[in-house]
Amino acid sequence: MAGAFVTTPDIARIEAARARIEGHARRTPFLTSPFLDEIAGRRVFVKAECLQKTGSFKYRGARAALSALSAEEAARGVVAISSGNHAQGVALAAQELGIKAAILMPADAPRMKLDNTRALGAEVIEYDRFGEDRAALGTGIAEERGAVLIPPFDHLEVIAGQGTTGLEIAEQVADAGIEAADVLVCTGGGGLSSGIALALEAKAPGLRVRPVEPEGFDDVARSLAQGNHVANAPGAHSIADAILTETPGMLTFPILHRLAGPGLAVADDDALRAMAEAFRRLKLVLEPGGAVALAGALFQPEAVTGDAVIAVATGGNVDADIFARALSYAE
Amino acid sequence: MAGAFVTTPDIARIEAARARIEGHARRTPFLTSPFLDEIAGRRVFVKAECLQKTGSFKYRGARAALSALSAEEAARGVVAISSGNHAQGVALAAQELGIKAAILMPADAPRMKLDNTRALGAEVIEYDRFGEDRAALGTGIAEERGAVLIPPFDHLEVIAGQGTTGLEIAEQVADAGIEAADVLVCTGGGGLSSGIALALEAKAPGLRVRPVEPEGFDDVARSLAQGNHVANAPGAHSIADAILTETPGMLTFPILHRLAGPGLAVADDDALRAMAEAFRRLKLVLEPGGAVALAGALFQPEAVTGDAVIAVATGGNVDADIFARALSYAE
Repeated sequence: MAGAFVTTPDIARIEAARARIEGHARRTPFLTSPFLDEIAGRRVFVKAECLQKTGSFKYRGARAALSALSAEEAARGVVAISSGNHAQGVALAAQELGIKAAILMPADAPRMKLDNTRALGAEVIEYDRFGEDRAALGTGIAEERGAVLIPPFDHLEVIAGQGTTGLEIAEQVADAGIEAADVLVCTGGGGLSSGIALALEAKAPGLRVRPVEPEGFDDVARSLAQGNHVANAPGAHSIADAILTETPGMLTFPILHRLAGPGLAVADDDALRAMAEAFRRLKLVLEPGGAVALAGALFQPEAVTGDAVIAVATGGNVDADIFARALSYAE
Repeated sequence: MAGAFVTTPDIARIEAARARIEGHARRTPFLTSPFLDEIAGRRVFVKAECLQKTGSFKYRGARAALSALSAEEAARGVVAISSGNHAQGVALAAQELGIKAAILMPADAPRMKLDNTRALGAEVIEYDRFGEDRAALGTGIAEERGAVLIPPFDHLEVIAGQGTTGLEIAEQVADAGIEAADVLVCTGGGGLSSGIALALEAKAPGLRVRPVEPEGFDDVARSLAQGNHVANAPGAHSIADAILTETPGMLTFPILHRLAGPGLAVADDDALRAMAEAFRRLKLVLEPGGAVALAGALFQPEAVTGDAVIAVATGGNVDADIFARALSYAE
């Protein structure tokens, strides 16, 4: 063989993941409001993954990955590193499947995410996001325990599980009579956006994934623009805790480079305004990192093409104090 | 014939309403959370009608009633009286069907409800809830304009439209493998609870409707207990603006008397706590009057029977200041 053979996720793997998670993950609704259409100047469809089990899409990838383990691997238990949504997804999937889970979480993660992960039966190990190398910590704990590491995005079955969102979007746009549109996806490491992009390539090729990131954390957008991996400059801050990754994934970036973009970057204030609109118009609770795609659709209409847009509302695990800030935009 | 023949809603009328509103009203999801199950001490299923178009179940009855008008009636326009949710339902259904709508609303209704009703193209006529007789006002305006009055609950097609919620619940409990359970329904005049009761009688006879009202406004519960119509004592207050009716309906009460009860009454504080749990655990925005059924399920477990309970979350049209009060219970 000429070179190393690298397995990459594909539509067959996404469909296999769907078969495994069916009856466990929810088929989330596609919501609309004439008020949102008016703001955006086009029809807006919101894929409400905040209504997924554990309050974010992450349960899909977690259940897909854990259900793909062999009995021998499952018996060894799993370790995950997560700011909180992957943590809850892995914790619930592990609990359902009777697998032991240890989750490495930043000590300053939202309280709701820390509490829920523990309440779902996982062992939570807190670390200092600024002083410790989480990847080394995670690998160390996995090796020490002989457990299987379940990465948050750069993993074949995790990407395949998130891609099941794309299969549903393809069916839901067909029901709505839409053949071409931008699909705005809140993006951290790119697991969800790359999974959706693969699903749409096969099932709804007129739709294109547009990654949406917080300002200061638009590594995916800039990497897509430059054609290679770039990292975020240090020192940036954002309230969108769920999607503050440093650089695109090794598995996810080639998929996004081939199928997605250009990316959008959203200011924290616009994420809060989008949360307020979701509260008023859709009766949905979104977290800042789950609202940036809707923010792009509503407040950057010039960056979007076509007469319909799909925004994936990826999560709703937000503490009350941050949500109260968003409400001040809903007067 | 021995006596006057009174038409009453039945399952055939509900199924006909469903055929007319299909593709317009949403089939709302049935949501769960292990955290809610733990509070209630049994499995809790939430029928999320706050995700219905216009943010409440009222769109179902409005669309059912307006789509049953003859062309001649539709051309005359409609008049409705509503504290806000029926108003929005009638406004949107009228807009979709090209029918003129005038809505009589209390001047102190939540701002969101007044604004939305106007934004959906209806003419809003404000009245003083304490000083004016709304029924006389509504009838007067309808007569003056030659328009058709669409009552909020005591109307055959409105009850039939609300009953479509019950058809969906019957299908959703079957999917969940539940044969017997209490179905807690937020209740004002009883349009939704009587419609659901009729649908369940035909499709899921092991399920029983339990009306849930705010304390001080438990006219339905007390009427069911006594077997005849009783009214609320004057002077009571509640934040559950959507369901503050004085007495059960003439059409709805006989149905509820035959099929539903006993009723539950919920304190405002518990409605706010239920809103906080819906925020934290389901990522749903509920208004106080849409949260009393969930409050009953969570905080009055001794009043409920069986190992599963269904709570209908009827609406989410709440102003930001009231929602902020609920958030203080979510710390």
